Amino acid sequence: MTRVDPAWAACPVPREETERVLLGHGSGGQLSAALLREVIVPGLGPAAAGGGVEDAAVLAGGAGDLVLSTDAFVVQPRFFPGGDIGSLAVHGTVNDVAMMGGEPFALSLAFIVEEGLPVAELRAVAASAGRAAAAAGVPVVTGDTKVVGRGAADGLFVTTTGLGRRLPGARLSATRVRPGDQVLLSGPIGRHGVTVLSAREGLEFDAATASDSQPLHRLVRAMLAAGADRVHALRDPTRGGLASALTEIAEASGVGVELVEAAVPVPAPVAAACELLGLDPLQVANEGCLVAFVAPAAAPAVLAAMRARPEGAGAVRIGEATGERPGRVTARTLVGARRTVDMLVGEQLPRIC
Amino acid sequence: MTRVDPAWAACPVPREETERVLLGHGSGGQLSAALLREVIVPGLGPAAAGGGVEDAAVLAGGAGDLVLSTDAFVVQPRFFPGGDIGSLAVHGTVNDVAMMGGEPFALSLAFIVEEGLPVAELRAVAASAGRAAAAAGVPVVTGDTKVVGRGAADGLFVTTTGLGRRLPGARLSATRVRPGDQVLLSGPIGRHGVTVLSAREGLEFDAATASDSQPLHRLVRAMLAAGADRVHALRDPTRGGLASALTEIAEASGVGVELVEAAVPVPAPVAAACELLGLDPLQVANEGCLVAFVAPAAAPAVLAAMRARPEGAGAVRIGEATGERPGRVTARTLVGARRTVDMLVGEQLPRIC
Repeated sequence: MTRVDPAWAACPVPREETERVLLGHGSGGQLSAALLREVIVPGLGPAAAGGGVEDAAVLAGGAGDLVLSTDAFVVQPRFFPGGDIGSLAVHGTVNDVAMMGGEPFALSLAFIVEEGLPVAELRAVAASAGRAAAAAGVPVVTGDTKVVGRGAADGLFVTTTGLGRRLPGARLSATRVRPGDQVLLSGPIGRHGVTVLSAREGLEFDAATASDSQPLHRLVRAMLAAGADRVHALRDPTRGGLASALTEIAEASGVGVELVEAAVPVPAPVAAACELLGLDPLQVANEGCLVAFVAPAAAPAVLAAMRARPEGAGAVRIGEATGERPGRVTARTLVGARRTVDMLVGEQLPRIC
Repeated sequence: MTRVDPAWAACPVPREETERVLLGHGSGGQLSAALLREVIVPGLGPAAAGGGVEDAAVLAGGAGDLVLSTDAFVVQPRFFPGGDIGSLAVHGTVNDVAMMGGEPFALSLAFIVEEGLPVAELRAVAASAGRAAAAAGVPVVTGDTKVVGRGAADGLFVTTTGLGRRLPGARLSATRVRPGDQVLLSGPIGRHGVTVLSAREGLEFDAATASDSQPLHRLVRAMLAAGADRVHALRDPTRGGLASALTEIAEASGVGVELVEAAVPVPAPVAAACELLGLDPLQVANEGCLVAFVAPAAAPAVLAAMRARPEGAGAVRIGEATGERPGRVTARTLVGARRTVDMLVGEQLPRIC
């Protein structure tokens, strides 16, 4: 974004002042990363930089490190098969805490409500968030509600913050991956993104899908019990999909990632919808699966632990980290060719979470 | 809100389903309290109930209790004399943690950005939040950014969450006030509300005002060092002003509050603006002062400690808690009459924070 082309360099108005935020800045892809790196983190200060690489911050403390994560939810529509903005906000934040090895124990929840929203809808969302929190065993302990005038928001936005205590032995970081690490995926991809898109556009596909939105902290607990600090990195591939999650980790650790594309489970309705819409399933958002980088010796035990949990029943090995092409993700296709898997550049599916 | 009048009772459509969120539900007054009590807390679960009475949740832990608070900021305009939405979000959240006796040590910050916002403006807000956090000594450790389409938000919303460790000896709660407690106010009221309103409406008053937005955690630390657990309750009178803060505490503790109206410092420009606009300064928002209920024996020492800090240089005693008229706030006027001080019912100044 601060790259200056010659025409602009000669222009008296700095380019930056004419730049505007684009939908693609919220995609979880390259534009998001640039906005964070060049605009937000320089402002907020160095401690915020961790948030660019990890899903949550780890705060060193006396009796166990704390893990803090925050996420704003703007999904449209607010209700969709498999969930709604309330349950999604709870699951998303529980999962972000879990991806850093945190056992979540408290949530906060802030509503921004547009004047005119039916109270019954706000009630339904609050109840859904409460049920999701109860099912996850993580209470909502505080919150806030603001109301803005008609037209100043689109119905309802929810921002959740999760607080957790780091599990003993957890040493998870996007920077800890080494060549040879096995890449494990907990289940099929693409359901959340395709479901929300279908609900929004009123599309009907041959087979119905539902969002995979679910809490993953118990799965993470089981994985760390099996693999401890040999589980090097975890990520839930939400905005930007598996492609962005793998690329971010490849860049942060300076490794390549080689994906066996045929091993990545894509449910038939997701595959059909993606073909119809011209989407790459690897770039479609998920809200109930995770990808793990695990030292080779520990990978079989961790995979077995994943499969023993309902959230990880469909867990598979999908590739490995390599010393070649650092920062790049490469897919071997069915016909044996290789292709580079790119992060999203712009916006594929706005307001997916 | 669930009060059923006879006409509605006979109506086949339940009234609730026809109800819509009003601007007044965000006022911090009676409608806000009702929405929280009847819609949000029943959904989110019992642990969230604390958030209705206190500014933050206290989480019992091993090495010191944790204090967690969250707030959404939707102030309009985003830049005003004395601050902007970024510094305001940091100060507001630092203060909410402090009001529960927490020493804040980490902040998270989530942006919801409308497509088309100038990047330079986002940069300015992030930098302002970063400067405010650095000045408060509380780092922003994680965050999130979502972008919504044009017309789906009004420029920029910021949700901050603060995490603190409870100061030793702090036992603050809106429920701990007893008859005889002295009511101490740290400084003049009304500046934030009048400033934002003036900036929004392009009003010019005889004398300029600026928001009082500032962090109060160091003031709280000094007060607790002087008064320890004899400081019973603290509140920063933001939305809904001093009237709402005092009423909430009176209701939560089951005491009356008797205010000496002439003792409440109202700066001349605030008084003039309120007179012109028909506002009650007691109902106007503040972002840099606090009100304390302190056991009588400790009140002089706590007041002296307040006055020794710049944030509390103008601290004064403004009244006391009584055993009469529980849940009510009464003001003695200059002419010796008494009037009941009411919480806001609807919306006086929307989007003040």
